[in-house]
Amino acid sequence: MLTSPSVHVTRDRYHLAWDPAIEPIATVESGAVVEFDLLDASCGQLDAGCGVPQLLQLDFDRVDQVGGPIAVHGAEPGDALQMDLLSFEPADWGWTAVIPGFGLLADEFPKPAYHVTPLRGRGPIEFMPGIRLPWAPFCGVIGVAPTSGPLSTIPPDVFGGNMDTRHLVAGSTLFLPVFQPGGRLSAGDGHATQGDGEVCGTAIETPMRATMRLTVRKDIKVSAPEFLAAPDPNAALRSGRRYATDGVGPDLLGAARDATRRMIDWLGREHGLAAPEAYMLCSVAVDLRISEIVDMPNYLVTAYCPLGIFD
Amino acid sequence: MLTSPSVHVTRDRYHLAWDPAIEPIATVESGAVVEFDLLDASCGQLDAGCGVPQLLQLDFDRVDQVGGPIAVHGAEPGDALQMDLLSFEPADWGWTAVIPGFGLLADEFPKPAYHVTPLRGRGPIEFMPGIRLPWAPFCGVIGVAPTSGPLSTIPPDVFGGNMDTRHLVAGSTLFLPVFQPGGRLSAGDGHATQGDGEVCGTAIETPMRATMRLTVRKDIKVSAPEFLAAPDPNAALRSGRRYATDGVGPDLLGAARDATRRMIDWLGREHGLAAPEAYMLCSVAVDLRISEIVDMPNYLVTAYCPLGIFD
Repeated sequence: MLTSPSVHVTRDRYHLAWDPAIEPIATVESGAVVEFDLLDASCGQLDAGCGVPQLLQLDFDRVDQVGGPIAVHGAEPGDALQMDLLSFEPADWGWTAVIPGFGLLADEFPKPAYHVTPLRGRGPIEFMPGIRLPWAPFCGVIGVAPTSGPLSTIPPDVFGGNMDTRHLVAGSTLFLPVFQPGGRLSAGDGHATQGDGEVCGTAIETPMRATMRLTVRKDIKVSAPEFLAAPDPNAALRSGRRYATDGVGPDLLGAARDATRRMIDWLGREHGLAAPEAYMLCSVAVDLRISEIVDMPNYLVTAYCPLGIFD
Repeated sequence: MLTSPSVHVTRDRYHLAWDPAIEPIATVESGAVVEFDLLDASCGQLDAGCGVPQLLQLDFDRVDQVGGPIAVHGAEPGDALQMDLLSFEPADWGWTAVIPGFGLLADEFPKPAYHVTPLRGRGPIEFMPGIRLPWAPFCGVIGVAPTSGPLSTIPPDVFGGNMDTRHLVAGSTLFLPVFQPGGRLSAGDGHATQGDGEVCGTAIETPMRATMRLTVRKDIKVSAPEFLAAPDPNAALRSGRRYATDGVGPDLLGAARDATRRMIDWLGREHGLAAPEAYMLCSVAVDLRISEIVDMPNYLVTAYCPLGIFD
């Protein structure tokens, strides 16, 4: 099989909505490898030299742009499009922010915060002094053209899009339903690392070089994203000793908020982090799991912080 | 420190509600080890020789009984009670069931099912032919006396109770808030193994011998369960290659239902499992994670099935 890219998508070839009216920028054969050169999720509005003033000037009509679309010969509605995720190469910096009005605890964190993290090599990422995060890059957004549009690129949907799923690292294989001839794949939103949930609304956001192989599958039917997840590249850390906080109640969203709030409290009292820093750390390193979803009327969501991230 | 138990709670010393009016059966010093000999969550109504007829005769007023309570000298409201979870020893059998009216997909699985699994040694558990599950025993229920009662033992709450949290394996340390003098700890609901979510409402339910050390902590304040999770004893399997299905939408519960439904579909088409068997397998082996909880208006819940469970 070919592993050198058939198509290179430059960083200026992006679009700002999911819309079947957007024409593909290229069409490839099934089995071709596509390389995306992607701006960060701010569409280049933010960089390593920015701070809160630039964050507050962010033009939201330009965020979560996606590179593409790339059509695949022979893909027809009802087929599945298979993406073998071959590599994700972040830039040498990333940003994380508390954006007013956005995030799981938006009402409790009205003030903006902006944090830059250097990304060097493939080793642990020094997020803050004494806190090293696992290297686990992926694209937050991978999607195909929907049945109709235009639709915002912010929410994910059955066609994929902004799934922000940290397990979609290199070595994983994603299957998306095809709704339009050619499928029309786009990608964006590079993340150097993230926790399950992405609770503050941002990961370590970074420009990304992403390569993936696109294959039309007529033998598979999916109605929403499904994937074969690669082994977690940091399983020993992420499944090692963890501190865990519970949220419990009749509403899963409320339970997730409680669990996150308690984790922020613990990071403050145990590790001395100010609340906005703890909230951002939760977004990039803490995993939300549904512990039980059957013991009516109360569900239980647990937030897990790997202890191996602390020096 | 002592590791031999100070108190042994026999299987007939149980109660059927959380209620501060229930007197402790014993009082121990802080640091003491308590050993619980626990009936399964059916309170001994079901066993390895039962089937659907016995399941249908289940008296629900007698389920999820808990052994105890054990008071700890010096524990006062506002303190935390620390439980060092020392060991969990299941019986040599367990049951899993689809109970009509109970479970995440109760409306779609109205028919009862009852499945018995042999549990021998500490190795992988042969759940069905060709399907081996990780050995990861724990107690679904660990809780303290609440502020007022009586309360059902089915839902978990800020005092712990039916948390059904699979990460509370031996080696973990649980912290619960104390609401009554002595704390008054009870435990039950032995599980040989389970997935995050326990979606059909039952794990591999088994009688359990559980030992834990109880320590009063006046230096820690918790308002709901928090815990130090031991390293996952099966990290390589559970974080290895997994098949994953997404549920996406504005309601987390609906998204979790969709993700589970899609996993059941996949287990059927890929592994030939009938839907009730696949639903039970999801409950004992598939993990529900919240992938993103910020990309409004759509949340994304992902169900992960470890591929290493299949021969």
